[in-house]
Amino acid sequence: MNAKIKRFTSSFSQNGIGAFLVTKDININYLTGFPACEAWLLVGPRQAFYITDFRYIQEAKDGLKGISVRRYERSIYETAFSLIQGMNVKQVGIDAHHLTLAQYQMMERKRPKGIRLVRTNGLVEKLREVKGEDEIHKIRKALMVHREAHDFLKKIVRPGMSEKEALLKLEYFVKSKGAGFSFDPIIASGANSSYPHAKVTGRKIAKHQPLLIDMGIDVEGYKSDLTRMFFLGRIPPLIKQVNDAVFEAQQRAIAKIKAGILASEVDYQARNYLAKNRLAKYFGHALGHGVGLEIHEGPRLAQNNHSVLKEGMVITVEPAVYIPGEFGIRIEDMVLVRKNDCEILSDDIH
Amino acid sequence: MNAKIKRFTSSFSQNGIGAFLVTKDININYLTGFPACEAWLLVGPRQAFYITDFRYIQEAKDGLKGISVRRYERSIYETAFSLIQGMNVKQVGIDAHHLTLAQYQMMERKRPKGIRLVRTNGLVEKLREVKGEDEIHKIRKALMVHREAHDFLKKIVRPGMSEKEALLKLEYFVKSKGAGFSFDPIIASGANSSYPHAKVTGRKIAKHQPLLIDMGIDVEGYKSDLTRMFFLGRIPPLIKQVNDAVFEAQQRAIAKIKAGILASEVDYQARNYLAKNRLAKYFGHALGHGVGLEIHEGPRLAQNNHSVLKEGMVITVEPAVYIPGEFGIRIEDMVLVRKNDCEILSDDIH
Repeated sequence: MNAKIKRFTSSFSQNGIGAFLVTKDININYLTGFPACEAWLLVGPRQAFYITDFRYIQEAKDGLKGISVRRYERSIYETAFSLIQGMNVKQVGIDAHHLTLAQYQMMERKRPKGIRLVRTNGLVEKLREVKGEDEIHKIRKALMVHREAHDFLKKIVRPGMSEKEALLKLEYFVKSKGAGFSFDPIIASGANSSYPHAKVTGRKIAKHQPLLIDMGIDVEGYKSDLTRMFFLGRIPPLIKQVNDAVFEAQQRAIAKIKAGILASEVDYQARNYLAKNRLAKYFGHALGHGVGLEIHEGPRLAQNNHSVLKEGMVITVEPAVYIPGEFGIRIEDMVLVRKNDCEILSDDIH
Repeated sequence: MNAKIKRFTSSFSQNGIGAFLVTKDININYLTGFPACEAWLLVGPRQAFYITDFRYIQEAKDGLKGISVRRYERSIYETAFSLIQGMNVKQVGIDAHHLTLAQYQMMERKRPKGIRLVRTNGLVEKLREVKGEDEIHKIRKALMVHREAHDFLKKIVRPGMSEKEALLKLEYFVKSKGAGFSFDPIIASGANSSYPHAKVTGRKIAKHQPLLIDMGIDVEGYKSDLTRMFFLGRIPPLIKQVNDAVFEAQQRAIAKIKAGILASEVDYQARNYLAKNRLAKYFGHALGHGVGLEIHEGPRLAQNNHSVLKEGMVITVEPAVYIPGEFGIRIEDMVLVRKNDCEILSDDIH
């Protein structure tokens, strides 16, 4: 059992469990280092089992070290429970967010007497919030490729090019570096930028109009997530005003970030500044989120999240203003929370 | 309400429900024609509501015709139940496979007295199994692009090129046609082909070794899914023997396909032929599956599926033999089930 799994098992007794059934691929990936696919990971006090089916058994055996691999034939439930019985464990943790109602009902049906399923919430997600050195290193790698991709975009983006054409070229560039995207890039020109989650269209990029590009790079599962505004030509005065306000809101929020501050306090910095400029009503989403193996992880920088930021967390800071039908401005950077401040991981991407 | 939604509502009373809460994006897409994202669709006897949040409300309003769009602020559960109460409906269908245990528990908590949640299983999936003319047309469009992509591969694939390089070029070709992939292509050379779900690696494609390419094209949500073996140079006699057996198994299965036959009978044709050639133990997965808005839909062509094939179903037929550590052969085509036979939709892709 590796260090991450050992750390996970050390949280078992305080949660009243003797073992845990991990049913979410990303969490299995986190605990084992193996890109899990259609598999469950049963973590016991002393041993872990990776349970998968015929199609994936070979890669699993080749790829997993120190973790037993088991193939299920008829029913993953039966195989899992049989292994649990072998561990002599009575209480097994599950995560209600990572099982469908149908799966849970099947588990209850197949559950041997004497074994109880204990519903837990985000235990592995909580571990993932604070990044280890190896993880921060991988996020930096993703950001290095991101910087190259950003510089590539600056070179090729020009008036007359469609959003789709820009995406096509960008994708080829990123993939030729052996990387992938964390999510479908948002390349939103002109009024398309007023959609917070715009889809790439055939619209042509034009002079004197904003171009919002929100993209993320994935290197070995770890991700970046940044938004940059590209202005080709003159920036209309109103748009410049809003851009400056969004930028200032972001800088104020970033200046507050350090271990010990509440997530809601950071959100407040940005939102309050926009409110003072009568723009808060156009900023309808949270200020930021954790990034790691998933593009959206804990913690959320939101008005209603009063949890404390810790050293080693990696979060986005992305205030925005969307004027429906007109334009949208979003500026997003990633920071690493430190003891007394934070490091802006994306500071060299302009 | 459009024809698909009307057809859906006509199944309500036999399932003991007055309304249905669709919580799976693909099913909302099927019923509305709109690419749903982080939304629920509440289908009532006379009206349907698309419920989403701030980030997506604008596109939804612009994109949905004949369906009311509602934005939820605090809780999608509260908004949904409030709309249900407005419909005067007592029994609301849900699908246990498309809600997490956590979501179901929250719904039970928020559920007003007098409204009951009725668990159903795959009602929309059942509708999706038989394709309408418009859907078959879209699948044909996907196959047309697939043919171009296949011909492109034949032109560029050569010994010394790595799997990754082939994928990079293929992806650029497909995306420049305005299409996407249905799934991550499998480009498995030499012994990599023995993994049923091989991942693309840096391995160089070589002469006199099998190259298995399993890819699918996505055009407007509808998908293709085909596997072709590429042989560069001489085919070692054993591999040729296995290839011929797999091909014959596939042809025998296809010859049986028509409306009225059981899915298990079709599977039996292929599996039994391979068994006669002592190869069945190397064929560890089902013979095929439906394809439409999802890459895996009903019906499954499997030993334990005794449901009847219907006109308008679109299915894959993909027998295979995998010799661990050595090689794998899989040959996959798509057919449209007809009254007295089937049309091989991929017949012109060689």
